Amino acid sequence: MRLNPVLHILGQLLQVVSISMILPLLCGVYYHETEAYIFLLCILITLITGTLLKLIFKEENIRLVEGFSVVSFCWIIIPIFGSLPLYLSGNLSFIDAYFETISGFTTTGASVINNVEILPKCILFWRSFTIWLGGIGIVVLALVVLPALSVGGRQIFLPEQSGPKLDKLKPQVREVGKIIYGVYIFFTCVQIFLLVFSGMNLFDASCHSFGALGTGGFSTKNASIGFYNSLKIESVIILFMFLGATSFSLHYAALKGNIAYLKDSEFMLYLFILAFSILVVTLDVSYQLHENLSLAFRHAIFNVMSISSTTGYATTDFNLWPDFSKLILIILMLIGGCAGGTAGAIKVVRILLLIKIGLRELYKIIHPNAIFQIKLNGKIIPEDTLQGVSGFYFFYMITFGLCSLIMLAFGNDLLTSISSVATTLGGVGPGLSLVGPMATYSFLPSIPKLVLCFCMLAGRLELITLFALFIPSYWKE
Amino acid sequence: MRLNPVLHILGQLLQVVSISMILPLLCGVYYHETEAYIFLLCILITLITGTLLKLIFKEENIRLVEGFSVVSFCWIIIPIFGSLPLYLSGNLSFIDAYFETISGFTTTGASVINNVEILPKCILFWRSFTIWLGGIGIVVLALVVLPALSVGGRQIFLPEQSGPKLDKLKPQVREVGKIIYGVYIFFTCVQIFLLVFSGMNLFDASCHSFGALGTGGFSTKNASIGFYNSLKIESVIILFMFLGATSFSLHYAALKGNIAYLKDSEFMLYLFILAFSILVVTLDVSYQLHENLSLAFRHAIFNVMSISSTTGYATTDFNLWPDFSKLILIILMLIGGCAGGTAGAIKVVRILLLIKIGLRELYKIIHPNAIFQIKLNGKIIPEDTLQGVSGFYFFYMITFGLCSLIMLAFGNDLLTSISSVATTLGGVGPGLSLVGPMATYSFLPSIPKLVLCFCMLAGRLELITLFALFIPSYWKE
Repeated sequence: MRLNPVLHILGQLLQVVSISMILPLLCGVYYHETEAYIFLLCILITLITGTLLKLIFKEENIRLVEGFSVVSFCWIIIPIFGSLPLYLSGNLSFIDAYFETISGFTTTGASVINNVEILPKCILFWRSFTIWLGGIGIVVLALVVLPALSVGGRQIFLPEQSGPKLDKLKPQVREVGKIIYGVYIFFTCVQIFLLVFSGMNLFDASCHSFGALGTGGFSTKNASIGFYNSLKIESVIILFMFLGATSFSLHYAALKGNIAYLKDSEFMLYLFILAFSILVVTLDVSYQLHENLSLAFRHAIFNVMSISSTTGYATTDFNLWPDFSKLILIILMLIGGCAGGTAGAIKVVRILLLIKIGLRELYKIIHPNAIFQIKLNGKIIPEDTLQGVSGFYFFYMITFGLCSLIMLAFGNDLLTSISSVATTLGGVGPGLSLVGPMATYSFLPSIPKLVLCFCMLAGRLELITLFALFIPSYWKE
Repeated sequence: MRLNPVLHILGQLLQVVSISMILPLLCGVYYHETEAYIFLLCILITLITGTLLKLIFKEENIRLVEGFSVVSFCWIIIPIFGSLPLYLSGNLSFIDAYFETISGFTTTGASVINNVEILPKCILFWRSFTIWLGGIGIVVLALVVLPALSVGGRQIFLPEQSGPKLDKLKPQVREVGKIIYGVYIFFTCVQIFLLVFSGMNLFDASCHSFGALGTGGFSTKNASIGFYNSLKIESVIILFMFLGATSFSLHYAALKGNIAYLKDSEFMLYLFILAFSILVVTLDVSYQLHENLSLAFRHAIFNVMSISSTTGYATTDFNLWPDFSKLILIILMLIGGCAGGTAGAIKVVRILLLIKIGLRELYKIIHPNAIFQIKLNGKIIPEDTLQGVSGFYFFYMITFGLCSLIMLAFGNDLLTSISSVATTLGGVGPGLSLVGPMATYSFLPSIPKLVLCFCMLAGRLELITLFALFIPSYWKE
């Protein structure tokens, strides 16, 4: 692996980050906040570092193997710079600031801040904006970069027109990336407009739009969306969490007039999972907690959509729900949303392929000599891709188990441990028990916090991208 | 599917069951128990039914597809006859008696009997003997029948000399079956001798030998092995639980002078899992519960071995252990022992192959154009087998999740629900919380009991064998 091109790209991305800090700077200036000057400092530090890296290390065509380093390094290093405003404003320790920023860039939304309402607006804006930046990064990563790198069966999402030109990533990234950017920005603007129309002020509307579309879930209120107690606002947020958690290639096609949602098997399975979960949670909550059916339904649809899209907003303390609904939430945290959106976790398409792999074993029993090929949306999926999906799923469950054990070893209770790992690995945000939607991660010691940072990164980078860094032979060549 | 040959074989097996009921009959006569006459009745009912089935339905060479029906039907129908003594003796309702007998034949050891010490000896003997019968059935199933049927990647255990003669099962079953029978009976006798030598009476020694080697775990004492508080007895039981949970082909080779244990990757991984679990549980229990290190080790080695071998004996109430150790136990329940023994659950060899499938994805990233073949003990494993393993693993986790939800829907708490499903699916026996080692399943309503019966059967029949029965096209032809 050559460090030159990797560090060159990191430099470029740091320049982008420094430029995007201009927005919170303007926000701070507008609200006459003294913290605005911090952003000036952070912009300078980030810009200078980025420019130096770009100048010192030469641009070269990156190779397949190096593509992984770019992706992994950026998601580890960029949050260090991104966390500077939170750290320098004196509100958080460095580890807390890094946790919060990783949580933003990975579109998780897990927070260590107990009282967000006392924070300066420019800091809150930047916090939510990291989700938006992370979200667009993820969509491009999911739809363009990872497929080209064949990560965990992601080659199925490779845009057809571009084909698997594995050794020349850049032209693809730019071409498809631009289109996706357009859709993403368009959706953000529409959502801000709708939220303002529903009664939010522009500042809150912007922050919540970044959170919902990026499926991140940082709020500007301690009670999250529950603060507003508004059906209109909840409906808008539900819509955009859903859009964020489904494939942007479908949205792009739809905006061009080709509405292909119902022809997409992953989308249909996702709808089924949502409908089933909302139904059983409504019944469970209504029956066990004696809530009236329409209120139970309102809570179920918002919070199930929030968890399942890996956003993490809340309108009620679902930590008080019965155990049945809690297990549904944990399973939803593991499944996540559709691939090609901003949602995290295993992803619905992998679940769909795993079901097909399982069913194939049943059919093999009945027709032992027949050859069954697995199809998705009418196309045959190569065996190589299926192996990738199986390998990914196993790694996901192993990581889930091992990290839960580490959390337990630090004295956390079972539900806190399991749910904190499921929620960070899946990029959701809130968990259950001590890390429920009305609590934060601030009480955890540093090492469990770093373990959860690892989970957020590992989940976001589809595990294999990150794990490859730990294989010694990766560093040779 | 033709019912003729399937019912013919069922008839044969019922004859075997009726003959094996002679042992508890003799036991009852020896102890002058009035319940002995019940066995006379049960022997008659079972023998007549079996003989009628055998006479009415003709013997034919069974085909591959029908092999599954034989296996599934027998494990569902035989416990009905096996449960007659428990039901007729008036101690249990029919569902409870069926639960207890399924638990025995599947070598699970989950019990609904709150006070076993008041039961007649002949009933206790039969209860433990069902485990022994189930155990030998499983070993033959695992080493001979399932490999020939290619279930969930089990073809890897196909005995080499016989080869995959898929359409003629019977000669294989008889030939390899006889050898395995020999090893099994030999181990049982040695264990009874050692337990008597360690201070148990012959009756208890027999019952516990059936339980340990069959990895079932029914005890004749309410406090299980903890009753004896004897290091010698614990050591003997640990040894035979270990032997039961490892491959009988390795034991057979060893008895013939070819000690190949350390060359077997599955065996080595199992040793590693055991060593790691015992170490961390010892430290956790000793540190958190302030137990002295040697007592914590004594408890850890017995109970970890018991859970991991899917036996379910206990020397302490591990339900009182800290959450960390509890999660270790749940993970061990899911992993289980080695294939080719009497242990249940996913099995170590599948975990080994899944790890290799996952690692291969990592290596593919570094060398995208290379072709990696997965080997086990130096032999290349065909891709077809690997797909079987992946499909099985996914089905296992799906079944685990869905059945846990059903248990929760009946109002059980999270830990009771999850652990009762993990423990019955894995054929372990005791779970955690309300179904801990010092409790029983008697408090559950009928439907959750039947769900757990389903789990015991599904786990024992390697899921796919049972699930195939639910596919409509299975019944055509």
